Amino acid sequence: MTPLDTLKKYMTDEALSFVYIDNPDTIAYLTGFHSTPHERVLALLITSDFTQLLVPKLEETEASSYDAIDKVTGYKDEENPWTILKEIVKYDGLFSSIGIESDYLVVDRYHQLTSLFPDASFTSLTSYLQDMKVIKTSEEIIKMKEAGRLADEALRVGMDALSTGISEQEVVAVIEFEMKKLGVKEMSFDTMVLFGDHAASPHGTPGERLLQSGEFVLFDLGVVYNGYTSDVTRTVSYGDPSPEQKELYSIVLSAQKKAQAAVKPGITAGELDSAARQLITESGYGDYFTHRLGHGLGRSVHEYPNIAPGVTVPIQTGMCFSIEPGIYIEGKAGIRIEDCLVVTEEGADPFTQTTKELIILPVKD
Amino acid sequence: MTPLDTLKKYMTDEALSFVYIDNPDTIAYLTGFHSTPHERVLALLITSDFTQLLVPKLEETEASSYDAIDKVTGYKDEENPWTILKEIVKYDGLFSSIGIESDYLVVDRYHQLTSLFPDASFTSLTSYLQDMKVIKTSEEIIKMKEAGRLADEALRVGMDALSTGISEQEVVAVIEFEMKKLGVKEMSFDTMVLFGDHAASPHGTPGERLLQSGEFVLFDLGVVYNGYTSDVTRTVSYGDPSPEQKELYSIVLSAQKKAQAAVKPGITAGELDSAARQLITESGYGDYFTHRLGHGLGRSVHEYPNIAPGVTVPIQTGMCFSIEPGIYIEGKAGIRIEDCLVVTEEGADPFTQTTKELIILPVKD
Repeated sequence: MTPLDTLKKYMTDEALSFVYIDNPDTIAYLTGFHSTPHERVLALLITSDFTQLLVPKLEETEASSYDAIDKVTGYKDEENPWTILKEIVKYDGLFSSIGIESDYLVVDRYHQLTSLFPDASFTSLTSYLQDMKVIKTSEEIIKMKEAGRLADEALRVGMDALSTGISEQEVVAVIEFEMKKLGVKEMSFDTMVLFGDHAASPHGTPGERLLQSGEFVLFDLGVVYNGYTSDVTRTVSYGDPSPEQKELYSIVLSAQKKAQAAVKPGITAGELDSAARQLITESGYGDYFTHRLGHGLGRSVHEYPNIAPGVTVPIQTGMCFSIEPGIYIEGKAGIRIEDCLVVTEEGADPFTQTTKELIILPVKD
Repeated sequence: MTPLDTLKKYMTDEALSFVYIDNPDTIAYLTGFHSTPHERVLALLITSDFTQLLVPKLEETEASSYDAIDKVTGYKDEENPWTILKEIVKYDGLFSSIGIESDYLVVDRYHQLTSLFPDASFTSLTSYLQDMKVIKTSEEIIKMKEAGRLADEALRVGMDALSTGISEQEVVAVIEFEMKKLGVKEMSFDTMVLFGDHAASPHGTPGERLLQSGEFVLFDLGVVYNGYTSDVTRTVSYGDPSPEQKELYSIVLSAQKKAQAAVKPGITAGELDSAARQLITESGYGDYFTHRLGHGLGRSVHEYPNIAPGVTVPIQTGMCFSIEPGIYIEGKAGIRIEDCLVVTEEGADPFTQTTKELIILPVKD
C-alpha cells in the first residue's frame, strides 16, 4: 500500500469526513507533487475514496501530471480558495471529524476551517503521520543514499578547496558551485564551513575569516536529491594539529562511533544520546556538548524523532536519523562528527562514507 | 520609536498581558536577532516593560548580544520550553489577553498556550504587525537598495554566462557562485533561469535544457542583504528575436512601465494590477497573464500586500512591492519583467536598475 492508501484506510477506521493537509512536504510525501506556495493556499483534501488538490492557478498544469491526485482545482489570485474548498469537499452539513496536521496548520487557517465547518470536530494527524513518515520505504532510502553520496562528494570538493588565506564563504561558494554542476538543485540547508575557534558556535555562520595553517575546519552540509535530504559533518585538520586538538577529536570520534554502534531496533533514542554523552562527560567535556545527539531526517532535514536525553521513542528498522556529537569550547575549538543512517536489523547503515578518522590536509600556500 | 517600542505602546493601549511571537522574521524585525530554529521553540515574549527571548541553549550566547532583548533564557534539548515559558512570563492567574501572530502560530503551539493560560483570551496581531511591517523605515530601504544592486549584478553575471549549449542549471551555478564570492550568503529564493518555451511555466524549475540561438532567457532572482531580500526578473534575447517575440516583449514591457508609472500614494493595489492587466488584455493576451501583478517584500520575499485584482489596500509611501506582469504561452514563450520598488511621494523608486528595454545578446558558440 502507498502512504496515501494507508492514510485512506486510517480515515475509514477513524470515521474522518476528510483530511486537510497544507504542509508541502506532506503533500509531496503522499502524492509526489512538491511546490512551495509561499502565502498562497495549497491544500490536499482527502476523502476515503477521492484525493483532490486545491492549488494556485499557476501550478495547475504541473500538479495535474501526478497520478495520485484524482482531481486538481486551480484558483486565481483574485478568487477565495476557502469558498472553493467548501464546494469541492461537498459539505453536506454532516461532517463529523476533519483530520488536520496540527503541528503545521496555522491558527488563521484553522479558524477558517472551524467557521466553514462549524459542527465538525478536528482530529490531529500529527503523530499518525509522524509514525508513518518515520519509517522510510526502500524507495525513499535509495534516494537518501544518493543524497548521502553527493554529500560525500561535496565534502571532497570542500577539502580540495582549502588553502591558506581562503575565506569560509569562498569555500562555501566552491562547494555549492560544484554541486550545482553535478545537477544538485538545492542544498539541504545553508552550507556551513567554519575555521578554528569560529566553529565553537554549533550554529555559526560562514564569513570573511581566512584560513590559517594548523586550524581545524568544520564542514556541515547536505544536498536534496529527488526531494530527500542528506546531512553530514566532518572536522578536518588543515596542517598539523596540536596534541590538544587531536585529543578533543578522538573523544568526539569515540562518542560518535559508540553511539552509532549502539544503534539497533528496540534501543531508545535517549539511550543512544546517553551512549555518546556519557563518554564525553567521562572525558571531562560534558558541559561542552551543548546539543542533542541527533535528529530524524527525510524530506525535511530535521524530522521526528529527536535523539536527545530522556526521549523514550524506540528505534525501529527503517528510521533515518543523524548521530552528531560535538565539543565546543569558546575561543578555542569546535569539533563535530556526524553521519546520518538508516536502521536495519543489523544496526546502522550510514548514508555517508567519508572517513571519520582525523584527516590531516597538506597546507597549500 | 523603534518597531518594538511601537508594539509595546500598542500593548498598553490594548491591555494585552503579553505578546508571544515565534516567527523568526518578526523576531528579527523587532530585535535584530535572526535564527532559524527548525522544530525547536524560539519565542519572543514581550510585556509592556520587558522583552525576553526563550531560545535553544545553542543560540543563547549569540542572542544575548542584541540590546533590544532585555533577557535571554536558553533551554536545553531535554528541557520543556513551555514549562520555562510559563515561569518567565510570571503568570499570576490574571492574564487577560495574549497577543499572537495567528498567521504563523501553529495549532499545536496555540493549544499549548491555551492550556498554559486557560483564562486568557487571544488577540491576533497579524494585521497590526502587517500594517507596521509594510511601511519600511529608511534603514530598511537602504538595505533593500543594496540587495537590489546585488541583484542587478547577478543579472549581469547571468547574461555574461550565456553561450550556446550551456544548461539552465549551469547558468544558475555561475550566478550563485559569483554572488557568494561577493559575500552574498543567501539568495532570496531558488534562482530561476529558463530558456525558450520552458519559461512558459511561471514557476518553472531550471534543468538540463541547453541554450540555443534565438531563444529568450528568463532570469528571476534575488539576494538577501543584511536580512532584506531583492527580487528581479528580466527576459533577454540570446541572438536575434523573431518579430513575434519582439511583439510579445513590447506588450509586457508596456504593461510593466504603465503599472510602475501609476504607482503613487492613494492608488489601490487592485488599480495597479488593473493598469497592467488591461493593457495586456487589450493586446489580446489577457488569458496568458495568469498571476497577480506583484507582492510585497522585505525580510521575506513574499509579504503583504498582494498586488492583485480587486485588492483595495491603498498604496502608501514606504511600501515596497514588485510589479511583474508576464505572458506565458505553452510550447512557445514565457516573458516576465519585474522591478521591486519603494513608494515615495513622487511615485515609484525601483531597487533594480538593469534596463528593461529588450536586451539582445550576441550568440557565443
